[in-house]
Amino acid sequence: MRAVALGGGRGLHVTLSALRLITDDVTAVVTVADDGGSSGRLRRELGLLPPGDLRKALTALAGAGGPWPEVFEHRFGGTGALAGHAVGNLLLAGLLEVTKDPVQALAEAAALMGVTGRVLPMSTGPLDIEAEVTGLEEDPDTVRRIRGQVAVATTPGRVRRIRLHNANRKDEAPAACPEAVEAVLDADVVLLGPGSWFTSVLPHLLVPELHEALVRTAAARVVVLNLVPQPGETAGFSPERHLDVLCEHAPRLRVDAVIADADSVPTPDRLRRAASVLGADMWLASVAAPARPDRHDPAALATSLRRAITSVRAR
Amino acid sequence: MRAVALGGGRGLHVTLSALRLITDDVTAVVTVADDGGSSGRLRRELGLLPPGDLRKALTALAGAGGPWPEVFEHRFGGTGALAGHAVGNLLLAGLLEVTKDPVQALAEAAALMGVTGRVLPMSTGPLDIEAEVTGLEEDPDTVRRIRGQVAVATTPGRVRRIRLHNANRKDEAPAACPEAVEAVLDADVVLLGPGSWFTSVLPHLLVPELHEALVRTAAARVVVLNLVPQPGETAGFSPERHLDVLCEHAPRLRVDAVIADADSVPTPDRLRRAASVLGADMWLASVAAPARPDRHDPAALATSLRRAITSVRAR
Repeated sequence: MRAVALGGGRGLHVTLSALRLITDDVTAVVTVADDGGSSGRLRRELGLLPPGDLRKALTALAGAGGPWPEVFEHRFGGTGALAGHAVGNLLLAGLLEVTKDPVQALAEAAALMGVTGRVLPMSTGPLDIEAEVTGLEEDPDTVRRIRGQVAVATTPGRVRRIRLHNANRKDEAPAACPEAVEAVLDADVVLLGPGSWFTSVLPHLLVPELHEALVRTAAARVVVLNLVPQPGETAGFSPERHLDVLCEHAPRLRVDAVIADADSVPTPDRLRRAASVLGADMWLASVAAPARPDRHDPAALATSLRRAITSVRAR
Repeated sequence: MRAVALGGGRGLHVTLSALRLITDDVTAVVTVADDGGSSGRLRRELGLLPPGDLRKALTALAGAGGPWPEVFEHRFGGTGALAGHAVGNLLLAGLLEVTKDPVQALAEAAALMGVTGRVLPMSTGPLDIEAEVTGLEEDPDTVRRIRGQVAVATTPGRVRRIRLHNANRKDEAPAACPEAVEAVLDADVVLLGPGSWFTSVLPHLLVPELHEALVRTAAARVVVLNLVPQPGETAGFSPERHLDVLCEHAPRLRVDAVIADADSVPTPDRLRRAASVLGADMWLASVAAPARPDRHDPAALATSLRRAITSVRAR
């Protein structure tokens, strides 16, 4: 089964870990709009794709053996120029500069890490997120624009809508990575979420060719909802509000299954209704980690995914 | 034939390139007293072995194929925190921090680079060079102490003698890398030079266990002289003065062959005499690169080495 997971950060790490338990043919399509931390510093200094989310996806799919997965995730300490940089980010930056081809750079890093599957960027160039946010002024309906992944993810206001800009060529639409478009079109199943909704999950829908591929693909489309609202960008968001926002950003997108944690859905009927608007069945299950109810358990998520996918394909 | 080349920087790169043409069993024993450039910044910031000379030795022994040799040598540009850092230096720094074992870290990097042979540090911890220098004061015989590889290599004075200090534990003698000691003892041939005489070649003789191994080994001991005096540390040094200095720093060391470029030796008789004091034959040949008379030609050097080694072993 060919599976494609779209996302970024810890959310993508979870879906990749779960998919590894189901199939060997996993492709990660990773957001490249990050502007915080080690990634943001590298991006500002070198004008490259922010490598952090790509690195995390490689680590999630890495095979055992050898020191490389640990080296990739290792961060320099201290208070100097390198403090906080992940070694894998620096290595990816070097590969990106030398190969001048993100797909080749990631294939080389994947070979080094013993990755099963593939890691691709959603776009071949760095992107900027811009959000329309309310609740920042005295008049609660005044809309302000906020720019940058960190600013959007941590806004005390309410995010209404996001846009994506090509960071290096402001006047051009974000260009999809062709291999990512192809992977979505050839997939048997594509996964959206969990993760920071506005800054890791929805951005994929705002790259025109990727959006079109997600609309057109014959793959089963599965949305995995978050366990808890994200402070900042989705503070106070109900599970169904997540789906409404998805629909507002991609009105033509049909979804086959929505997976949510049973304990995180206070009003299942409302979620079922919101899912059906997208064409999807709702799947409730216990998918949170026993010790960390704010994190998905990869094995439990794999079980839910297997059931949902089997049911969609039997339709 | 088991060959060990001791040195650092471009000089070591040349001997390794030449030895590769003669044998597959090459071990580089690399100086770790550098405190300049990208290496110096990493060393000061992280307290690690300076990685630059180790990186260059890996590159000299790297197999063809794949982007890694180019990535290792690639330097970040611009004017930011990473400007001038070689990617391979950052990668080695990460490997050193994660493995906490320089020999293992270098073995991993060597595997990645497709290295034929082995690269070892001369010491497992960073070292500091201290030099006694004259000619810096009005009285030309006043001795001043200068500390650090860059300071010594560029001094306008005359270097008389060097010492090596353990950089992290000032009161302890420099500790040899045990694998390097073993490699010297097990070798069929060991090479000293060419290279910055006081800062890349002689330091190996100032690590007590390594010195002892060089004195005791049954290997053929070959010294390769520089083509031109180094501005700064060996400005105005004749070829025979290089050997005198070697002798002053290691009176018990016997040498079997001294290889020099015929065009770089103005007074062959004097050099022959200086070589014989060390127990060595003098081998004069054209070993400079045709287009760059200040650099050795690896193929020509390999031919000279082969002849000298054969003759020593036939004794």
